[in-house]
Amino acid sequence: MPLIRSVFQDELDGVSQTLLDLTAMVCTAISEATTSVLNRDLTIAEKVIETDDRIDDMQHELDGRIITIIARQQPVATDLRALVTALRMSADLERMGDMAHHVAKITRMRHPETAIPTELIALIKNMGETALAIATKMGQVIATRNVDLALEVERDDDEMDQLHRQLISTLIAPQWSHGVESAIDLTLLGRYYERFADHAVSVSRRVHFLVTGNYS
Amino acid sequence: MPLIRSVFQDELDGVSQTLLDLTAMVCTAISEATTSVLNRDLTIAEKVIETDDRIDDMQHELDGRIITIIARQQPVATDLRALVTALRMSADLERMGDMAHHVAKITRMRHPETAIPTELIALIKNMGETALAIATKMGQVIATRNVDLALEVERDDDEMDQLHRQLISTLIAPQWSHGVESAIDLTLLGRYYERFADHAVSVSRRVHFLVTGNYS
Repeated sequence: MPLIRSVFQDELDGVSQTLLDLTAMVCTAISEATTSVLNRDLTIAEKVIETDDRIDDMQHELDGRIITIIARQQPVATDLRALVTALRMSADLERMGDMAHHVAKITRMRHPETAIPTELIALIKNMGETALAIATKMGQVIATRNVDLALEVERDDDEMDQLHRQLISTLIAPQWSHGVESAIDLTLLGRYYERFADHAVSVSRRVHFLVTGNYS
Repeated sequence: MPLIRSVFQDELDGVSQTLLDLTAMVCTAISEATTSVLNRDLTIAEKVIETDDRIDDMQHELDGRIITIIARQQPVATDLRALVTALRMSADLERMGDMAHHVAKITRMRHPETAIPTELIALIKNMGETALAIATKMGQVIATRNVDLALEVERDDDEMDQLHRQLISTLIAPQWSHGVESAIDLTLLGRYYERFADHAVSVSRRVHFLVTGNYS
């Protein structure tokens, strides 16, 4: 049945393409969320918050499509596993959009003040850039199924964990002069970036498992 | 094919039973995590942390089983949707176990000190009890597919959100005398309970959607 197989292949390619479209959206979202929080830019923050609804809609459509493909094509074990993995990856990507949304909401909550004291601008900028780099590499892992790149995402996440520890150290140092409310904002902000990166690692691991049959 | 249908029905019942077993485990985990953090009890905290590995293993086994059922039985759309929903519920339950684990890790990190100042003991106790009540009701929703009960879980979550706001208000009040490090612990603790309850809401919504075909 070469024709039916080809339709199915097109459907699988369509799923991969939507995962890449979602990746592009969460990359833009985390990048703009970081810009919004560093520049206390309400307009960009509102844009990120609105984009999250579009990410949710796209994920919802994708999940429905995947289930329809499974129901109609009754795929063999390997293809089924790829489709179930795609369902899980879409859930991770949706949560990455939520994390960008949460960052943007901190911008909005503090506006017109800033949530980021001067001495933490460089660190938060670094966390934002690391998050974007990890998500971009995760997109390459989805596109290429390159297992080495998947392992690199894990290592890049160690960098994020290190930045996160540095953030907490700054907050609890005796020199901290911005009070508890600011420390709460920054604790949550740190958690959002860390979770964003964790989901990118999760996506990369799923690809790795799909390709090798082994968890890294 | 009444015999094959019956085997399939047994398999679906087995999936539901494992979801209920996981629910029982996360109920115990969040209850004991709360006890550990209120009584700075390291032994109970270690137990919760170990239990989380068993929850992860059980979820992993369940997911493999669900994919095998889909591959072998090639279920019709309704049954397929139920099985995909079970996959998502198992992911929520696994995250609920993680949240209990995170609470227990705060106990361990602060030991032999306590993470909870005296004036917040009642509130954290209340958050722990609310989390347990929501998870218990979520288990009833899984067992009975009662749609009204599913909506009740949403309302109970409003109670959790209110407790969470109360916690943050306490931390940022001028009377707060326990410093930034303690406020960071409690911010994260509040987030863990809130996310635990969110996942219970997510499970209940999935059951509601499965039964009614509509998101509540």
